[in-house]
Amino acid sequence: MAKLLDQVNRPEDLRRLSVEQLKVLAEEIRELITQSVSRTGGHLASNLGMVELSIALHYVFDFQTDRLLWDVGHQCYAHKIITGRKDRFAKLRSRDGISGFPNPAESDYDVFTVGHAGTSIATALGMALGAQSNNSSEKIVAVVGDASIVNGLSFEALNNLGLVKRQMLIVLNDNSMAIDVTQGALAKFFSKVRLSHTYDDLRRTTNTILEHLPVIGRPMEGALENFKKAVRMAISPSRLFESLNIPYFGPVDGHDIGSLIKLFKGMSNLEWPGILHVYTRKGKGYTPADDNPRKYHSTGPFEINGAASTKKGRRTYTEAFAEALVETAEADSRIVAITAAMSDGTGLARFREKFPDRFYDVGIAESAAVDTAAGLAKQGFKPVVCIYSTFLQRSFDQIFQEVALQNLPIVFCIDRGGLVGDDGATHHGLMDIGFLRMLPNMVLISPASEYEIKEALAFAAASSSPVAIRYPRDTVPNGQIEAATSGKPFELAKSVTIRQGRDPVVIAALGSILSEALLAAEQLADKNIDITVVNARFAKPVDPALIDMVRRGSHLITVEDHGIAAGFGSAVLEAAAATALQQDPTAARGSIITLGGPDHFIDADSRPAQLNEIGISAEKIAAVVEKLTAAINNQALQNSR
Amino acid sequence: MAKLLDQVNRPEDLRRLSVEQLKVLAEEIRELITQSVSRTGGHLASNLGMVELSIALHYVFDFQTDRLLWDVGHQCYAHKIITGRKDRFAKLRSRDGISGFPNPAESDYDVFTVGHAGTSIATALGMALGAQSNNSSEKIVAVVGDASIVNGLSFEALNNLGLVKRQMLIVLNDNSMAIDVTQGALAKFFSKVRLSHTYDDLRRTTNTILEHLPVIGRPMEGALENFKKAVRMAISPSRLFESLNIPYFGPVDGHDIGSLIKLFKGMSNLEWPGILHVYTRKGKGYTPADDNPRKYHSTGPFEINGAASTKKGRRTYTEAFAEALVETAEADSRIVAITAAMSDGTGLARFREKFPDRFYDVGIAESAAVDTAAGLAKQGFKPVVCIYSTFLQRSFDQIFQEVALQNLPIVFCIDRGGLVGDDGATHHGLMDIGFLRMLPNMVLISPASEYEIKEALAFAAASSSPVAIRYPRDTVPNGQIEAATSGKPFELAKSVTIRQGRDPVVIAALGSILSEALLAAEQLADKNIDITVVNARFAKPVDPALIDMVRRGSHLITVEDHGIAAGFGSAVLEAAAATALQQDPTAARGSIITLGGPDHFIDADSRPAQLNEIGISAEKIAAVVEKLTAAINNQALQNSR
Repeated sequence: MAKLLDQVNRPEDLRRLSVEQLKVLAEEIRELITQSVSRTGGHLASNLGMVELSIALHYVFDFQTDRLLWDVGHQCYAHKIITGRKDRFAKLRSRDGISGFPNPAESDYDVFTVGHAGTSIATALGMALGAQSNNSSEKIVAVVGDASIVNGLSFEALNNLGLVKRQMLIVLNDNSMAIDVTQGALAKFFSKVRLSHTYDDLRRTTNTILEHLPVIGRPMEGALENFKKAVRMAISPSRLFESLNIPYFGPVDGHDIGSLIKLFKGMSNLEWPGILHVYTRKGKGYTPADDNPRKYHSTGPFEINGAASTKKGRRTYTEAFAEALVETAEADSRIVAITAAMSDGTGLARFREKFPDRFYDVGIAESAAVDTAAGLAKQGFKPVVCIYSTFLQRSFDQIFQEVALQNLPIVFCIDRGGLVGDDGATHHGLMDIGFLRMLPNMVLISPASEYEIKEALAFAAASSSPVAIRYPRDTVPNGQIEAATSGKPFELAKSVTIRQGRDPVVIAALGSILSEALLAAEQLADKNIDITVVNARFAKPVDPALIDMVRRGSHLITVEDHGIAAGFGSAVLEAAAATALQQDPTAARGSIITLGGPDHFIDADSRPAQLNEIGISAEKIAAVVEKLTAAINNQALQNSR
Repeated sequence: MAKLLDQVNRPEDLRRLSVEQLKVLAEEIRELITQSVSRTGGHLASNLGMVELSIALHYVFDFQTDRLLWDVGHQCYAHKIITGRKDRFAKLRSRDGISGFPNPAESDYDVFTVGHAGTSIATALGMALGAQSNNSSEKIVAVVGDASIVNGLSFEALNNLGLVKRQMLIVLNDNSMAIDVTQGALAKFFSKVRLSHTYDDLRRTTNTILEHLPVIGRPMEGALENFKKAVRMAISPSRLFESLNIPYFGPVDGHDIGSLIKLFKGMSNLEWPGILHVYTRKGKGYTPADDNPRKYHSTGPFEINGAASTKKGRRTYTEAFAEALVETAEADSRIVAITAAMSDGTGLARFREKFPDRFYDVGIAESAAVDTAAGLAKQGFKPVVCIYSTFLQRSFDQIFQEVALQNLPIVFCIDRGGLVGDDGATHHGLMDIGFLRMLPNMVLISPASEYEIKEALAFAAASSSPVAIRYPRDTVPNGQIEAATSGKPFELAKSVTIRQGRDPVVIAALGSILSEALLAAEQLADKNIDITVVNARFAKPVDPALIDMVRRGSHLITVEDHGIAAGFGSAVLEAAAATALQQDPTAARGSIITLGGPDHFIDADSRPAQLNEIGISAEKIAAVVEKLTAAINNQALQNSR
């Protein structure tokens, strides 16, 4: 059967369809999203809720010249389908397909590559100010979710909207559920507003706005005041936005394409910034996702008619951590857990169930999460802060001042440390070692197995200083490596030799990448190259034993799932230089080679492919060892001549 | 004449004085602050405004068990004088005296060492949650200024206050002026409230609150509602706080000790969080500061009966930058400037006067400042973002995602890069190279003279990628060094040899510390040690010529006014390791020694003393060269045997 979607290859094609046809199109797009995500994995529920809104936006605005800014950006699938990427949509989140987030390299319709929360209003503010200075007429539209608008960055931008004296539309997509249930006063306020409105109220509000819109396009102060008065009678006044002097419209029904088109048409002519508050339903149209939007927020491949599939096989580092934390907390009542809207993603849901009184979720507010932890630590608690590596970048200054400078015993459990696979460049955790190891008092460890997750947590919980534990978005290693890494509790700045070789080559692997290093060692053994493999465990402080090996002539290769710049290998180089200065700076030593992430961004792909791309797969590690061994042999030959 | 202050050695001494005596005491404290700061320099205006508030807080609360949290913390002088530090107050901001910010190492009355904005509510939130869990009865009080409360971190914490089901008092110290005039909607809102109240209104508000306070200590829902209704009639309702469901009281007069004592007594018994909005006058009691609080925000030593003294002598890097920026902007109309409440501190005031339409101040909102710049860059502008190094830590994630990932041509002018002297540990800029050089697309330069400031800016303005320029809180170098660094425009990744020596020792100095390196070279020449000195210019990318010198057997010493961890020297080590891997990893090479900041925090002191402390003064550099030279000679001797 011919589909309307077949006729839609670019946004202008929408304008040839009637509202009734657009409704059908919405269902077709919903079906395409569900079908594709069931195969590729991705963000499902939020995208199902955004279909009508995306259609209406593209129907009214021309985002080749107008600018559409997404927040977090995981809800852009319908937008991608409409803007000429429907054929590539089957390859969502793969290297040769399209990204799961907006990406200007893919399409001019994407303005910023995003993935973090709170940026859309802030960047839209800058773009509106730019348009104001240019005196250009393009419309600026920022879409932000009710979970993202509570982020401090959103608030800072809202507080500066008064600088904008021209059109700038903020669409507040209120889908009543962030990744976790949104926390905080603003969420409660939204929910109160939400509960106070029936479907008929939404329709009445829409009509009231529409009736008055023709008037307010004109730059007449009086007209605006009249409009505000009229609307205030019909709608729930948003005191927050009013106190910030931002005109607020809504709430309206985000699945009523016809009304949305009229609203956007009217509001596109406003000559000042405004917020349109829109209700949408996560998971709309796909029953399992509608019933359980949290489960279908970000999903792997699943069976459309069944439950979300859970991959069989080894458990993830996240799952291992979740269990270990509950065990540790059972033994130590001072332990409390803090997250920033990520209790499912970080595995904290289990802790929350078990210890609801010792669990704090501050919403998408990574900065405040760390300061809340600092306050709790000052009160004698042992806070465990669980935030993805990439989002912890939002807390850098708080970790510096409120944690490291005070030397507070806070444990940072950094999930998604390293390459994350299909979420791509915005989500990799390739800088946490770099920004954390600059902080005095900070200890950085990375476990290489399930056993080590438990021991790392035990070590951190016993520390009187801040400790960060990083682990990847990956499964724990096989039984052989699990066994090889077991039995030795963590001791400060102590690495563990896992494999002792005869050749003067030592690999020091940090964290889960140890498994690739051991695999490389096995492959090399077949070629009669017999190397030593050390499980580094500590990125800070660096084990002096590693430096000593170099002093005694061994060649050291550091391997880390982190950027080379400022990473673990960099710390080893610094330690070696410092030791050399103290001893004899000119003495001959073994060389140090650092393997890790390069100085460019890494696109979405499978995690194994990415590990190979940046040169830390077993094969790539082995190739470096072979090159090094050839150089060593060559030198020995020259010396013997 | 005997002073009341002589009888006040600890907070409990206040309680022996009458309100009339406390008023006299306030004047005495004001005099001590003015006298001391005129000799030591420091924050004057804000502290003069805080005297009565500090007395009343310590009169009512017992901050040995109750907890007082400061925001930014520069307004804590009266607090320090009251809490047993009046005798050391003459040595404010010196190594053997006391810090200009709260510091737990000095006194149990200081809870957190702070210096950045927005932390007091966030850490108080954590402490209140901790007290709630502990079921302990200490009172938690956060003091926050009207400039800090607009920070995203403050908002994130306010949004989570609903977690607190016990007492927690936020004192909003509204002194109507941040360091610069506070920007944004909230500031406008406060100012509207402010203008709508006469002095009599403040008194009436105070009375209304006091009349109802006995009632609201009780945990009765109805009583609270009645109270809110009663108060709402008399005071200007704060819609913002109400929409966040935070009980709001005020505004009241912050110089009326008697009323403040009654208000704090009443509010200390509240069983939920609340905000008391207090008006104070910056500079109160010292006419020049009262008339010109901006000038006296943070001042060097001055003559009490005259104007603030301006140190004669060479201009600062900040002044040189201010002039260079105006010149560059005259030639390039795409240049716009953005700051976060620091137009005076960063030297942007001059740009603002000249180009008011191309200047944006977003208030203390470093994260939004960077995103605003990102939006402006997308619109074809060339934004110059001016933020102190330590505060730029707040923007790390925005620079990562919204700037580096998009590869936007934004110029970061990082003032206070390096050791800052008397502001101490919270204010040093010792990490900017580390966190910025991890970002792909980013270029990092550091000028060593006034000429180089101009050239660095010209280079950055011409770049199509983000460029960061860092310079210290210091004066530009003398004429000799100015001449030695002049004449050569910046070329990407190109260092400049300033002094060519005969010995195989090369110092690569980054930025203004070049002057110490050249001084060291002169001192060494007297000892017949003849070294080469290179002006590195680029921290990223590292000049390959430096690595080549090492390959050819030279010993390289990097010197930077930045932490060794992840800094410029670290980047050189990485580059050398990468080059070695590409060429021959086992080949003999010169050594690399990295000099810079250590792995501990550096206290307040003079900047020269701090440079010496961390080992990058001319003397300390020379000593390292001597040690290295001895090792080289010793090795040559052994080789010749």
